[in-house]
Amino acid sequence: MTYRLFYSPGACSMAAHIALQEVQAPFTLELVDLSARAHYRPEYLAINPKARVPALGIAGQPRVLTELPAILMYVAQQHPTAELLPTDDPLATARCQEWLNWLSGWVHSAGFGAIWRPERFSNDASDYDRIRAQGRRTVIDAYGAIDKQLADGRRWALAGGYSVVDPFLLVLYRWGNRIGLDMHADYPAWSAISAALVERPAVQAVLRAEAVSLDG
Amino acid sequence: MTYRLFYSPGACSMAAHIALQEVQAPFTLELVDLSARAHYRPEYLAINPKARVPALGIAGQPRVLTELPAILMYVAQQHPTAELLPTDDPLATARCQEWLNWLSGWVHSAGFGAIWRPERFSNDASDYDRIRAQGRRTVIDAYGAIDKQLADGRRWALAGGYSVVDPFLLVLYRWGNRIGLDMHADYPAWSAISAALVERPAVQAVLRAEAVSLDG
Repeated sequence: MTYRLFYSPGACSMAAHIALQEVQAPFTLELVDLSARAHYRPEYLAINPKARVPALGIAGQPRVLTELPAILMYVAQQHPTAELLPTDDPLATARCQEWLNWLSGWVHSAGFGAIWRPERFSNDASDYDRIRAQGRRTVIDAYGAIDKQLADGRRWALAGGYSVVDPFLLVLYRWGNRIGLDMHADYPAWSAISAALVERPAVQAVLRAEAVSLDG
Repeated sequence: MTYRLFYSPGACSMAAHIALQEVQAPFTLELVDLSARAHYRPEYLAINPKARVPALGIAGQPRVLTELPAILMYVAQQHPTAELLPTDDPLATARCQEWLNWLSGWVHSAGFGAIWRPERFSNDASDYDRIRAQGRRTVIDAYGAIDKQLADGRRWALAGGYSVVDPFLLVLYRWGNRIGLDMHADYPAWSAISAALVERPAVQAVLRAEAVSLDG
C-alpha cells in the first residue's frame, strides 16, 4: 500500500513527510508548489478543495486525508512498531493531540497565517503590515511558551519519548529562522531538540528531498 | 474519578460538556465567564496559562488537558462503551480528527476569532471592522462546505455514526445564529443534524445547565 503525499517544500507538510520516512512506509511525493500557487489549480482543488497541503492519498480511499494533525496521528497509529506515539495510554495520545492542535490551530493558523497570508484576515492591503506585526507577536509569545515547556529536561516534546509532535516542532523552528528570529540564542531547549532531530536519518532524508535547511 | 470542566456558557467548551454528559462520566462544572474576562484572572492563568476554555481537570494529573479536539478524543477514548467514536478503525479516527482540527484551527480560530477577537489580528482598532468582515467571509465559506459535506444523506457528521464531531458542529450551528446567519434556511443538512442533536437527553441537559438555546 503506497501513500501519496501532496506537499510543498518546507511547508508544514514537511512534518508529514518526516513521519512517513520514519515509519518506512512506501510513499510517492506529489509536488504542490505553494510559491507557484499550484494549490489553487483546478486539478489540485479537485483533490483537496481546501487548497492546502499536506494531503495524504490512501489506497482505496476516494478522498484524501487532510489536516496535518490528523495525518500525523494516522501515520503513527497505522505503523505502531515505529513508535511515533509514546504509549497506548489515552492520556499520552491526548497530550500529543493537545500539542498538535495548538501548533496547527493557533501558532500556524493565527500566527504564521497572519504573517504570510494577511489576506486571510482583511481584504484591505493597507492593513497587512499591522496584521503581520500582530502575527509576529503571536508567534513570539507562543515560541516563548514552547521553549519554556521543553526546558524541563525532557529529551523530546512529549515526556514519554519521540513522537509526531517533534517533526512539527522542527518545521516551526525552521519558520522561526525564516522570519528572522534568533532561534539558537533565544530558544535553547527547542534548539537542543532540533539538533537531535537533524541527526535522525529520516529527517536528513527529508531535508535533502525537499532541498531545504533549518536556516530557512 | 471526577473530571473538572472549565467552561463558559455557549463557548466551544459546550461540546466538551456534551461529551462528558454523553459518556455519563462524573464531572463538576467550573465556570470561567469569558464575558467577565474571568479567563485572564491570575487564578485561572495558574490553571491554564493559555487563558482559554475548555480545560479538563483529570484526577491525578497536575496539569489540565487543553484544546477542545484533544479533550473530545480523550473523553471518547476513555469511555469506549458510549461509542462517541464510530469504530476502532484508525482511518475513522483520522476522519474524526480531520473534522475537529479544521473546525477548531480554521473555522473557530481564523473565522470566529476574527469576528469576536479582532484584537488577535491587529493592535489598531480602526482595522477591526474589516477583520470582522473577513472573518465573516471565512465562516460563510466554511459553512457552505460543511453543509455540502453533510448533505449526502448521512445521519451524523461521520458516516460511521454519532461522534464527538457532532456536538462541536452544534456549537458552531448556534454561533451561526448568533452572528445573524439564517442557519435554518441556508444550511438544511446541518439543520437536520442539529435538530436530531437537540433530541438527545445529554444535549438537552447541557443546554439547560448552560442556560443557552440554539437561537444564540
